[in-house]
Amino acid sequence: MKNAFVTRRRVEFMDTDMAGIVHFATFFRYMETAEHELLRKLGIPVVARLDERPLGWPRVSCGFEYRRPVRFPGEIEVHLGVARLGDKSITYQAQIVQEAKVLAEGHSTCVCCEIGPGHELKAIAVPGDIVEKLQPYRISDDSESEDA
Amino acid sequence: MKNAFVTRRRVEFMDTDMAGIVHFATFFRYMETAEHELLRKLGIPVVARLDERPLGWPRVSCGFEYRRPVRFPGEIEVHLGVARLGDKSITYQAQIVQEAKVLAEGHSTCVCCEIGPGHELKAIAVPGDIVEKLQPYRISDDSESEDA
Amino acid sequence: MKNAFVTRRRVEFMDTDMAGIVHFATFFRYMETAEHELLRKLGIPVVARLDERPLGWPRVSCGFEYRRPVRFPGEIEVHLGVARLGDKSITYQAQIVQEAKVLAEGHSTCVCCEIGPGHELKAIAVPGDIVEKLQPYRISDDSESEDA
Amino acid sequence: MKNAFVTRRRVEFMDTDMAGIVHFATFFRYMETAEHELLRKLGIPVVARLDERPLGWPRVSCGFEYRRPVRFPGEIEVHLGVARLGDKSITYQAQIVQEAKVLAEGHSTCVCCEIGPGHELKAIAVPGDIVEKLQPYRISDDSESEDA
Repeated sequence: MKNAFVTRRRVEFMDTDMAGIVHFATFFRYMETAEHELLRKLGIPVVARLDERPLGWPRVSCGFEYRRPVRFPGEIEVHLGVARLGDKSITYQAQIVQEAKVLAEGHSTCVCCEIGPGHELKAIAVPGDIVEKLQPYRISDDSESEDA
Repeated sequence: MKNAFVTRRRVEFMDTDMAGIVHFATFFRYMETAEHELLRKLGIPVVARLDERPLGWPRVSCGFEYRRPVRFPGEIEVHLGVARLGDKSITYQAQIVQEAKVLAEGHSTCVCCEIGPGHELKAIAVPGDIVEKLQPYRISDDSESEDA
Repeated sequence: MKNAFVTRRRVEFMDTDMAGIVHFATFFRYMETAEHELLRKLGIPVVARLDERPLGWPRVSCGFEYRRPVRFPGEIEVHLGVARLGDKSITYQAQIVQEAKVLAEGHSTCVCCEIGPGHELKAIAVPGDIVEKLQPYRISDDSESEDA
Repeated sequence: MKNAFVTRRRVEFMDTDMAGIVHFATFFRYMETAEHELLRKLGIPVVARLDERPLGWPRVSCGFEYRRPVRFPGEIEVHLGVARLGDKSITYQAQIVQEAKVLAEGHSTCVCCEIGPGHELKAIAVPGDIVEKLQPYRISDDSESEDA
């Protein structure tokens, strides 16, 4: 995946199930943590603020396609790219890679929301500096101007 | 969702995250457990055998769309239907429901595999009695004859 | 365990690990959920308020002794009793039971805390009505008057 | 903790709960993973073999004492020492450390078992080379000759 951010991690024993392989739901942990590592690297706090109002990124969609099992013990790479920068949302694409083989491929879409005093969420435009910082990790060239 | 199998469960504290809601990956636990409850109800063991050979159901694809958060404490319903009966695979569709509102919608596809002595997997046709038992839970009328 | 509150639950596939049994950390999920079920049954909210101040129950200690493995699929009982009612804390004792056999035995101590506006915690006396409601579930007769 | 093996890890978002802190059961994941890292570093496979018979390490006891909450985002150190080398068991002691402060302290005991063809477990003496490799990580000087 071109332009992807790459991070490595060990598979943990608790990630497995009685089928002897990493449980399919654990891949979402791997993808989310890679998202947070990318944001941290870019200086974008996971829990951010915009003009004193707290920002959040509720997830509206995610999925994984599994090609080969991931086993313990072992190390994996998570490759993470930005598949789409919507007006109000970010869609990530992820690959779980081992020895240059893609074991699984996932995606995840988060919406940029202002969090009100009563915890109500209001979708807002992704702040410009975040858009700018994520540009180098775009894996495709679809229009940025689409609505979220 | 017409014809769906419905099961109820409590939201557990450990299912939540620091955003104060059920973590998005936990929904896959809810969906998988509902699948297993349906199979058990139908007398289909999760770990089955066909002519003395062990059968498994590796997952090849899954996803969720999130509409509203699920909170602790609370009870949810998981509605589970069979979206597609392929030659060699089953695709489930799931809804997470609370007070008659759909909070999230998911899907999951498993392939019927014979497990060899060295743990190698070989996709095989879904046994006829399993197909028959799942028919009442089909939520759509797409052809059963498609290949997996 | 005399006077224990008993609740039943199914073992879930995701609770297992590649050793083919329920992972040892999952037992803490089972114990905590049983605690919450007992509190709910007694009308004690897990997130409570005392004179408009929010109360919390941070855990200060817990442990498990494992005698036999718990397997999927299967149903277990969690037996939960109050081992000690301190001035400012509650200690639970739990047994994981299957077919009248104790598979594991655990304990857990929570401290009653007032949560300040800046999330600071201050240990306070367990409110009298909570003490009263928990009395029937006491499994031992150690003094109630000890300090937490 | 003198002689301890030290490993670092990031706190992951999914490790937290709605109280805004790392869930108490997650500490057991941190401790177990540190155990496995130590064994790997020493060249001791988690799933080992002794004279062609598979060895396993079922856990018989574990616990944690919590002093301060662990928060996301953040990095923690896990300090792991060998508290006791029994004839047939190993007891680890763990500290969760942040900025030189101990946030929590745990322990865990595993028994060395031969795994029979029908998955039956038989406790056996910890192999001599494993005892030897673990010696430098002993945090106390209790006798090695006690029975497990």
